[in-house]
This record gives sequence, structure tokens and C-alpha cells, in this order.
Amino acid sequence: MIKPQTLKGFRDFLPEEARKRSYVIKILSRTFESFGFEPLETPALEYAEVLLGKYGTEGDKLLYRFKDRGDRDIALRYDQTVPLARVVAQYSNHLPTPFKRYQIQPVWRAENTQKGRYREFLQCDADIVGSAHPIADSETIAVAAYALKSLGFSTFQILINNRQHFSYEYIKTDFDIPSDKLPFIIRAVDKLAKVGPEEVKKEITTLEFSLEEAGAILEGIQGIKPCPDLQAVLDLLPKWNLPQEWYRFDPTLARGLDYYTGMIFEAVIPDYTAGSVCGGGRYDNLIGMFTEKSIPAVGFAFGFDRLIDALETLGLFPDYIHSSPSQVLVTVFSEPVLLHSLSLFQKLREHEIVSELYELPSYSLDKQLKYANRKGIPYVAIIGPDEAKNGTVTLKHLPTRTQKTLSIEKIIEELKKQKT
Amino acid sequence: MIKPQTLKGFRDFLPEEARKRSYVIKILSRTFESFGFEPLETPALEYAEVLLGKYGTEGDKLLYRFKDRGDRDIALRYDQTVPLARVVAQYSNHLPTPFKRYQIQPVWRAENTQKGRYREFLQCDADIVGSAHPIADSETIAVAAYALKSLGFSTFQILINNRQHFSYEYIKTDFDIPSDKLPFIIRAVDKLAKVGPEEVKKEITTLEFSLEEAGAILEGIQGIKPCPDLQAVLDLLPKWNLPQEWYRFDPTLARGLDYYTGMIFEAVIPDYTAGSVCGGGRYDNLIGMFTEKSIPAVGFAFGFDRLIDALETLGLFPDYIHSSPSQVLVTVFSEPVLLHSLSLFQKLREHEIVSELYELPSYSLDKQLKYANRKGIPYVAIIGPDEAKNGTVTLKHLPTRTQKTLSIEKIIEELKKQKT
Repeated sequence: MIKPQTLKGFRDFLPEEARKRSYVIKILSRTFESFGFEPLETPALEYAEVLLGKYGTEGDKLLYRFKDRGDRDIALRYDQTVPLARVVAQYSNHLPTPFKRYQIQPVWRAENTQKGRYREFLQCDADIVGSAHPIADSETIAVAAYALKSLGFSTFQILINNRQHFSYEYIKTDFDIPSDKLPFIIRAVDKLAKVGPEEVKKEITTLEFSLEEAGAILEGIQGIKPCPDLQAVLDLLPKWNLPQEWYRFDPTLARGLDYYTGMIFEAVIPDYTAGSVCGGGRYDNLIGMFTEKSIPAVGFAFGFDRLIDALETLGLFPDYIHSSPSQVLVTVFSEPVLLHSLSLFQKLREHEIVSELYELPSYSLDKQLKYANRKGIPYVAIIGPDEAKNGTVTLKHLPTRTQKTLSIEKIIEELKKQKT
Repeated sequence: MIKPQTLKGFRDFLPEEARKRSYVIKILSRTFESFGFEPLETPALEYAEVLLGKYGTEGDKLLYRFKDRGDRDIALRYDQTVPLARVVAQYSNHLPTPFKRYQIQPVWRAENTQKGRYREFLQCDADIVGSAHPIADSETIAVAAYALKSLGFSTFQILINNRQHFSYEYIKTDFDIPSDKLPFIIRAVDKLAKVGPEEVKKEITTLEFSLEEAGAILEGIQGIKPCPDLQAVLDLLPKWNLPQEWYRFDPTLARGLDYYTGMIFEAVIPDYTAGSVCGGGRYDNLIGMFTEKSIPAVGFAFGFDRLIDALETLGLFPDYIHSSPSQVLVTVFSEPVLLHSLSLFQKLREHEIVSELYELPSYSLDKQLKYANRKGIPYVAIIGPDEAKNGTVTLKHLPTRTQKTLSIEKIIEELKKQKT
């Protein structure tokens, strides 16, 4: 006997969860398409060299990487941005310029598992490849915002920054910050929203700064004014009809991935504190790793599990997600009247009343009612020997525990009324 | 510079192909749901022992199998039936009985690549777990048939057989067939439709049968009458309103997978000769490999690539699949009038006219028209300095090379008319 189990960090999605996922995917795809983004799919497996060296040394370690039977060094997709860069280099003559694509596929990371962190998870990306203009940066932010709105979030905030700010030019302090210490400082300041200013300062002091200097550094970063590139992006946002309260400049936002070069952003939902639900930015050098041409790009990804969790936490999923779409379960009373039930099912189908026939592990009506309850099917139709003889159906409404026996035509009429 | 390339047998799906895939997935999901099937998703990676020994020795060799960092022996999903069996054993108390589920995810097989055979491909499965009744067998056939009809195939045929027929009891010959030779004979006969009777007989003679005996064996198999179990399934099919010409009993159908125990079927499209587009059957012993309970099951999978290829070959994709859904490209004439274009885009969005703003790698109108052409966008809207001053838009219809300059309101009216 083989133990039925899943690997740590990997999940099965039973019907209700799977329906939630489809629902979110549908809304995101529709939003992306309404801005002219087209779908793209790339393989789960890539040559390892395509992925290596793009995500920082930490990222490289998290790749699911192995040798195939042909001794090729291969790895599972780690994100969707690097595969996009490869695609753009590989098919440059077959793609429109700019190339606006969305992509919704799983990625795999050998992370330490913990609450809300998985080894297989879905990403939902939208990117604009081939435009360096701030209009493209502003559009990706607008798309993220409208997608959140379409999902039903009424309050959210997009935090926006630019990687260029992390240099001496922008951080005003009375003393010099050695350049090798900047990356560490940035990583410390990035945690500000999560751990608070005292913790951030304490972390900076481990770099041979006094607490006072650490405070000055944090203040210096908090006091940064947007660079002209970012200001141009910020100025465009109201033109996409984004209300002021949907976004703000945040000089402490850093984001982890190595490949960002300019504007970066993240979306947070104030009523949902588990973390940001999307992040992205401009990465003008990544595609150049695959082709001689320099091709600018900007985009973002939704963290799908966070979105699902946030929608769940805030009660934003529509009710119908929680049960099977079937409106009626056609039960089977006994073998002799089975064909009457099947015929009723066919008639309901013809009238586009979503139904299903009970597939007969048992003739027990109790078990059939339990089946309807478990799937959340509100009506059960029963045809016993009497109903079969009289051409009628007994229709039970489970939520109200009421029932009536009517002709098949009347039952169909009744169910059609319920549908609307 | 890293060479941008995909692994042999793996594919990128650029927008048009990706749209075709979504289209087919949507129709299949809708059909499955209309019979009460619910969605399920399982992880790409499983413990290797979950998959090993279910697909025959050939199948085991084709698994993408490797050790993860925790030295676990793991493998990529090879089909969706074995993961379903695991799920049923793992969550038996949380699933309805019977459990009717559909699943549409990629699978991976280290096959020799050849035309139409890939190492990563999508499967679309629908299964009924927990019913041994012939009504369940007949429903899976009905679902496959209605799905093919919904996709637009007007002629197809479902070939049906039962694994039980492959025994002495059913094959009538004047001489004995040694039991160890039966599997080989079955594999030979399974190729009948593909290679013809002479080739099949020749293959049988390699087993120390004379050509005459080989002929008698083939005739014996072709002359098999359906066993009572299969006859019950065949008798139910007309009750699902399946026309006679959609299916037939075919005693030479064998199917490869090890786990089938009873009824088996395949769907072929007469106008499409590259092979069957779906296959399935009853597998009553598979789930028992994961749990003490014996749980019967029946189901099938569509070969997604075959479906796509058949739809393409027969010209059954709707026209809109071939181009971007955008109806209008809002061009950008120059930096000073950029905001006029953005404002027009916002207005079109408000009126639900699917549009996109050109994201400005260039102000060249030629390049912008080329972009619209490449994406199949029929209209381009132009706002130059004159239009900006007068509050008008020049709307160009690319297929007819006509254009008019109108107020924004009139343009919206015009486009709304085109939409219907």
C-alpha cells in the first residue's frame, strides 16, 4: 500500500479552492486584456543557464534543478519574467513592439516552507516590453490598480519608488556612507513597514554606525524626493483616473529581485496585513542577457495565494464560488425507474438548467441527499414508481426543506424562474 | 550572452496559440460542469512512489524523476489519473461520493520527440470515482461526445470495447492461444485501424503462428460479441440522446495504459487522421493501491494538442481567436498631445470598447499602424495637434483603409455600433 501524501510545500486544490482560483484568474485575465495585454505560456522546464544568475545567489539556490536523461542541466520555472526575456529574444521578429503580455502559470521555489509560503505557487504577470517611456511604467501601475478594484478590494495602496534613489546623490546625510554598505542598509530599510523604525535602526547599527547615525540614515532615506523619472510616472497616474488614495511615493520601498533598474512598486491592502499582494518594476537590462539589442521592460506580478487569502479574509468571494454550479441533483430511486431520471436530466439540460444525475454508488435517498448537501446543490428531483407512472417529479428544496410534486413541464418552469 | 532556446519537446505558446488554448479549455470546462463535474488541481511534483508502477515499465522509464534538496525521490506528473487516485485516498472524508471531477493541467513525459509528440503537454480529464454502475461508464462517453460537439466537430466516432474481452472465453478460434501470447496479440490488433489487417497478421505470425492462424485470430477478435457489462453501457447511450453514428463497439480497440479493468473507449474524427483525440475507460483497481477500500472509477482524457490540431485542420476556430481582442489602438502623435490620447483611451474604457494605448517605443505613425496590423486591431484612433485643438479624433479602419475625423462622442457611438 502506498501512502497517499503530497510533498511539503505542495498543495492539492479541491473543488471549492479550485473554483476560487478560476474566478480570480478570470477577473485578472479580463482586466489585462482590457488594456491590450495578450496571453503567453512558457514551458515548466528551461535550460538551467536561462534561469541562473538572474535572481541573485539566494534565488539560484532555490531553483528546482536537475539533469534530464539526455544529461541536460535543466530547472523548473522560478518566475515568469526571465522566461519572458528569453521569449522576447528568441522570437523578436514575430512579436509586436511593444510586446504587452500577461502570463498565469505556476512557479517552483525550494523555499523553507512556512505559513503562506509554498514551493509551488501561481504567478500572474503583466509586462510591457520595448518601451522606456514613463507612460509604460504608469500603465503597469494602473493595470494593477484596476485589477485590484475588479476583484472587489475597496481600499488598497500602491507604494512606488525608484531604484536610482539608492545612491549618495539622493540620500542626504552629514557623513559618508561607504558604498559597500548601501545594499545592506537598503535591505534593512525595506523592512520598515513590517518591523518599525527602532528595529531598522538597530539593524543599521550592526554596520558600525552609531544609533544616531542610523537614525540620520533612515531620515535621509525617508526624506528622499522622487527623481525626475519617477516624478514623470507619478504625474501620469491621475491621468489614468487613479484616485490619489490608491498610491503614494515610498522612498523606503526596496523590493528583493536583482534585475530591477528603475521604478519599483508594491500593492498593500490596509485591511490585510499578511503582506503585499503584488509587486513589480522596471528591468531594462534583463533582456540584454539574451540578445545584443538593449530592450527596456516594465511589469509586475500578483502573488496569487496572497490575493486568494486576502479575498477570503475580507469575505470578497461571491457566494456561488462555495458550491457546485449544479442547481438540481436528479436522484435515482431504483434500477427500474433509472431511465426516467436520465430522461429528466436530459430535459433539464435542454433547458440549460445546470443539473447532474446521481451516478449510483447506491439507491439510498439519504446518501443522495447527503451528496447534494456536500456539493451545495439546492434542489433534488425524485422520480419514484408513482411519479414515473404519473409523469411527475417530486422537487425538494433542501435549504427550506419544502417539496412539491408537479409535472415535468411545471418543474422546468419553476426552476427557470429560480435561475433568474 | 545566453542563447535563448527551449528544450526539445517543450513549447512556448505565443498569444494566438495561447488564445486557442484558453478557448478550448473554456468550452471543455463548461461542458464538464454542465454534467456536475467539479474542478481539481494537483501539484506538478509528487513522491516518485506515488507514480511508479502505475503506467507499465515503459511509463516508469518516461517519468521526469529526480532527487530534491531534501533527498526525496520525486517526479513530475505523468498523467492526472494517478494523482486523482491519490487525492481520493487522501481526502476520502472530504469528498462527495461519487466524486465527479475534471482536471486540466500539464503533464510531462520524457518521450522521443516527433511530430505531434511533446514532452510537456496539457491533459483534460473527467472522471467519476465511486460508482461501478454502467450509468457512470455511459455518462463519461456522453460527456466526451457532447464536449466534441460543443467544440464544433460535426462528425466523430467513439470506439468502445471492454478489457474483459481479451480472454479465451471471448476469442473464438479452433486452436488454443497460449496465455502468455495474448498481450502481444492485443497490441498487434490495436494497430488495425492504423496499419491494416495484412500488417497485423504479419505481426502475429512472428509469434510462431501460421498466416492462416493469424487470420483466424484476427477474425476471432473481430467477431467478439460485447460482454453483458459492455452491452449494458451500449444500451444506455441512446438514452443520453447520443445519435447512433457517434459511437460503435470495436472489439479491436485495446488502449495502452496498464490500469484499465473494464470498458475502454477512444474518440476519432474521420476528417482528422493524425490519431484519436480522447481516450479513457474503467479502472477499478487503481485507487486500491493507495487505500484499503476498493473504489471503482471510470473516466477519460482529451489529448489537448490533438484537439487543437484537429480544430485548426478543420478550420473550426472562430475568427476572433486569431487577433488581439482590442478593437481600437489609440496612437500617440507626439509628447505634447500624449495626454489627449490617454484621455481618449480612458473614455473608450468607460464605454467598454476594448482598446489599448500605444506604449511609445516611438512616435512614428507607421510603426504604430504596423503594431495594430500585427495584433489584428481593426481601428486606430489618431489625435494630432489639430484634433487636440478641435476636440476631435481621426478614426482609421485598417481593413478598408478608410478614415474619418469626428468628435469624440461620435467616435464612441460609431465604435459601439461596430461592436454589435
